[in-house]
Amino acid sequence: MGEKYDQLVAHLSEIEDLDRAGSILGWDQQVNMPPGGAMARARQLSTLAKLSHEMFTDDKTAKLLDDAERETDGMPYDSNEASLIRVVKEDYAERTRLPAAYVAEFTRVTAEAHEVWVHARANNDFAHFRPTLERIVDLVIQAAEYLGYKDHPYDALINRFERGMTTARVKEIFDGHKPRLVSLISAVTEHAERVSDAVLHQDYNADQQRAFGLDMVKRFGYDMQRGQQSVSVHPFCTTFSRDDVRITTRFDSKWLNPALFGMMHEAGHAMYEQGVGAFLEGTPLAGGTSLGVHESQSRMWENIVGRSRGFWMWAFPFLKQYFPTQLEGVDAESFYKAINKVERSFIRVEADEATYNLHIMVRFELETGVVSGKIEVADLAREWNDRFESYLGVVPPSDALGVLQDVHWSSGLMGYFPTYALGNLLSVQYYNRALKDHPSIPDEIAQGKFDTLLHWLNENIHQYGRKFTSDELTRRVTGESIQSNDFIAYLEGKFGDIYGL
Amino acid sequence: MGEKYDQLVAHLSEIEDLDRAGSILGWDQQVNMPPGGAMARARQLSTLAKLSHEMFTDDKTAKLLDDAERETDGMPYDSNEASLIRVVKEDYAERTRLPAAYVAEFTRVTAEAHEVWVHARANNDFAHFRPTLERIVDLVIQAAEYLGYKDHPYDALINRFERGMTTARVKEIFDGHKPRLVSLISAVTEHAERVSDAVLHQDYNADQQRAFGLDMVKRFGYDMQRGQQSVSVHPFCTTFSRDDVRITTRFDSKWLNPALFGMMHEAGHAMYEQGVGAFLEGTPLAGGTSLGVHESQSRMWENIVGRSRGFWMWAFPFLKQYFPTQLEGVDAESFYKAINKVERSFIRVEADEATYNLHIMVRFELETGVVSGKIEVADLAREWNDRFESYLGVVPPSDALGVLQDVHWSSGLMGYFPTYALGNLLSVQYYNRALKDHPSIPDEIAQGKFDTLLHWLNENIHQYGRKFTSDELTRRVTGESIQSNDFIAYLEGKFGDIYGL
Repeated sequence: MGEKYDQLVAHLSEIEDLDRAGSILGWDQQVNMPPGGAMARARQLSTLAKLSHEMFTDDKTAKLLDDAERETDGMPYDSNEASLIRVVKEDYAERTRLPAAYVAEFTRVTAEAHEVWVHARANNDFAHFRPTLERIVDLVIQAAEYLGYKDHPYDALINRFERGMTTARVKEIFDGHKPRLVSLISAVTEHAERVSDAVLHQDYNADQQRAFGLDMVKRFGYDMQRGQQSVSVHPFCTTFSRDDVRITTRFDSKWLNPALFGMMHEAGHAMYEQGVGAFLEGTPLAGGTSLGVHESQSRMWENIVGRSRGFWMWAFPFLKQYFPTQLEGVDAESFYKAINKVERSFIRVEADEATYNLHIMVRFELETGVVSGKIEVADLAREWNDRFESYLGVVPPSDALGVLQDVHWSSGLMGYFPTYALGNLLSVQYYNRALKDHPSIPDEIAQGKFDTLLHWLNENIHQYGRKFTSDELTRRVTGESIQSNDFIAYLEGKFGDIYGL
Repeated sequence: MGEKYDQLVAHLSEIEDLDRAGSILGWDQQVNMPPGGAMARARQLSTLAKLSHEMFTDDKTAKLLDDAERETDGMPYDSNEASLIRVVKEDYAERTRLPAAYVAEFTRVTAEAHEVWVHARANNDFAHFRPTLERIVDLVIQAAEYLGYKDHPYDALINRFERGMTTARVKEIFDGHKPRLVSLISAVTEHAERVSDAVLHQDYNADQQRAFGLDMVKRFGYDMQRGQQSVSVHPFCTTFSRDDVRITTRFDSKWLNPALFGMMHEAGHAMYEQGVGAFLEGTPLAGGTSLGVHESQSRMWENIVGRSRGFWMWAFPFLKQYFPTQLEGVDAESFYKAINKVERSFIRVEADEATYNLHIMVRFELETGVVSGKIEVADLAREWNDRFESYLGVVPPSDALGVLQDVHWSSGLMGYFPTYALGNLLSVQYYNRALKDHPSIPDEIAQGKFDTLLHWLNENIHQYGRKFTSDELTRRVTGESIQSNDFIAYLEGKFGDIYGL
C-alpha cells in the first residue's frame, strides 16, 4: 500500500496495542488479581485508556485518514484499505464528538454510581439509586446531543453498539414479534408441568463440569492453542489478539446450567474473534462488527446448537460418564426438555430462550422513554413492573429482582440492551442461511461434528471483522436485513414440540 | 509540593503505569498465555516499551526535572522530593545516552541471538554461538562508550544494575574472599560422604509442595492479600504495585529443593517490594534500589533463614505432616544437613551457598576480560573451563554445562552477574546488623516467628525503595560499605559445623 496508508496502519496499530494491553489488565483484574491490587490497577487502566484516547483523537489521526483516503481513492468498498478508512473515520467522528470535560464528568459520575447501585440493590431501595440515575440519564441525553441523531436521541446511543441501527427499526422489530412471544409463553406456562428441570439442580462437581464443558467447546472448534479458560465471578470473553482469545466461567456446584451453557456462550464469542481474518490482525478492523452480531454467535452455539435435541442425542452419553450418579435413569430426551424448560423468571441473565427477548423489550421501552423524556426516572420501578405483568404475567416481588437487577445503567450504558435481543434474531437468520447452504448441518451436529457450521461462519461472518456494519453483513449473508420471523418461528416450533402445544 | 514537582510526579506516574502494564503482560506471557498469543504479545510489549521510552526521554522530562529541582531547592537529601529528582535525573541521563539507532540494533541482535543460543546449547556447540556473541560483545562495548565510565568500560555496565559500583571494587571484594572460599570447598569435599541429600530426591507431590511452601512464605510475612503465586518454567517475582507483587514457582515432583527454596527466594524479593513505603507508590522510587540489594533479600529468606538449623528444628515436623512416607525415620538434623550439602556442580542456578559465588567470579573475570579486550570470545570456553578447574576442582564435561549454560549473554546482559554474589554478601551483612539490634531473632526463627526480622527489614531497607543507592543504604544500615568478611565467616561457621571440619 501507499506510504500514508502504512503510516495510518502503524499509528492505529499502536493504539490497538494499548487497548489490548488494557484488556489484559482487565482480564487479570477479574481472574487473578489479589484484593490489594485494585487501586493501582484502576490507575493503570485509566492511564492506558487516556493515552489511547489522546493518540486516537489527535489531529494526527484525522490527517493520516485524509491522506490515506486520497491515496486509496478508487479502491473497492469491500477492500481492506477502503474498509479500514471508512470504519475508522466513523470511529474518529464518534470519539471526537464528546468533549473531554464531558467524558471526565461521565467517568466520575458512573464510577461513583457503581457503589450507589450496589447498595441500592442490596437494600432493595430504588429511591436510593434514583438521584444518581437521574444524573446519569441527563448525561446520556447530553451524549446523544453531542453525538447527533436524526429522529430520536436514542438513535445516537444504540448507534454506538450497533452502527446504523435506529430506534424506529428496533421498535418495529420488537413490536413485530412481541405478541407472538407473549402468547407462546402464555401457552407454554399453561402446561408448565410437562417439563421438569429438577435433574439440573443437584451436586455437580465443578472440576467435572469444567472438564465436560471444555471438551464440548473444543469440539465446537474453540481453539485452545489460541485460547484459554479461567474462572471469574462474571463470565466474559476477551481478546488480546485473534490468536489469544480467552473465556471465563462461573461454576455453581449445585446447578449444571451456568457453567455449561456459559462456556458454550463465551466460546461462541471467542470463535468469532478467533475467526477474524489474519490480514486484519492488529488493526481496528479486528474483532466483531457489533454487539448484536457478536451475540448472534454466542447464542447460536449456546442455544441453537447447545440446547438442540440433536446435540444432546449425541452428547448426553458423554455427560453421563462425567455424572453417572446424578444422571442415573435419566434419558437424553428428558434431559433435553429439562434444559429447555420455560419459566417466567425475573432475572434476565437466567432467562430461557423463549422469554429472553421480553426482558429486553421492557428495558428498551423504558430507556427510550427516559431518554425522550416520556418516562420519569422516578416512575421506572412502576413502569418496569407494569410491563413485566403485561408481557410475562408476573410482577417482580422486589426492585432488586426488577428495575435494579442490571449493572448497565449505573455504568451509563443505555442503548446496549437491544443488541442482546437483536443477537437472538440474527442467530436464527444466520443459522437458517447456513442450513440452506449445508442441509446436512443438523445431522452432523447429532454426530458431534461441528466443522461445517463453524467453517460457514468463518467464511461468511467471522473473517470480515468490522469491515461491514451489522446490516451490511446480514444483507450479504442472508439477502435481507434483520427480521423477527425466523426467530419466532424457531421458538414456536421448538417449544410447541417440547410442550406438546 | 510545588506545581512543577506535582507535574513531574504525574508525568512519571503515567510512564510508571505503562511499565507496570508491561510487567503484567510479561507475567501473563509466562504464566497463562496460550502458544498462539506469542506474536501479538511481543508486539504489544514492544509498543508499551516504545511509548514509555519516548515519554521518559522526551525533553519534557528534562524540563520538568529542572523546574522541579529549582522548586525543591534546599530540601534534605533524604526527602522524598530531593531523592526523586536525584534518582530520576540519573535514570534520565542513562536512558538518553544510548542513541535510538543503537537501541534498535541491540534489540534486533539480541532478539535473534536467543534462538542461536538455544540451538548452540542444545547441540553443545559453542562455535555456533561464537559469531553472535562476538557481535553482542561489540554492542556491549559500544554501550559502555555511550554510557561513559572513569576507569574500566565494565564500570558503565555494572552501574546499570548496581548504581555507583565499580569494576575495581567488585574485583577487590571477590579477590578478598575467593581463596578462603576455594579452601573451604576443598575441605568440605574431602568429607563429602558426611552429608547425604538422597532424602530430597524422591516422589514429592507438587500440590503438597505448593501447600507447604505457601504456608512457609506466608509465615515469613509474604502478604497474599497483596500477592499471588503461579506456576512458570522460570521462577520470578514481578511487581504491579506495592499491593500486587507476585511470585512464580517451578515444581519438580522428584526433587524437593527447586520449589521449596525457590518460593522462599522469590518471596524474599516480593516482601522487599511489598515493603516499599506507600508514599513512593506509583513513582519511579517504588521498587528495589539495586539488583544486589534485591538479591540480599531473596537470599536472606532462602538461605540464612530457610536453610538454617533453627528454622528446620521448628519447620520439619510440619513438612513431615505433608510427606510422612518420604520422611519416615528422617530427623530434623539430618534433613538440615541434606538441604545444605555442598557439591562442586556445574550449573549456577543449582549451586549451593558455599560454591555459588565462585560460579559468579568465573563469569565476572570473563566478562571484564572480553569487554576490555584481554580475552577473545573465541577463547571463552577454554577460559571458563580453566577457571572452573582452578576454583572448584572440576571441569565441565560439555559447553552446555559450562560456558553456554546461562541465557544472560544472549540477551546482551553483561555486568549483571556480579550482583548475585554481591547480594549474598549483603544478605549476611544486613542479617548481622539485624542481630545486633535484635539478638532474639534466631530464637524467634526457631519458634516460627519471623516478624521481628521482617519489620527490621521493612524499617531499615524496604521502605526506602530507590531513594538511596546500594552503597548509601548499606552504609546507613551497617555503618560500612559492602565487604566479604561477614559472608565468608558465616559460610566457614555453618559448613565447618555441618561437615565437622
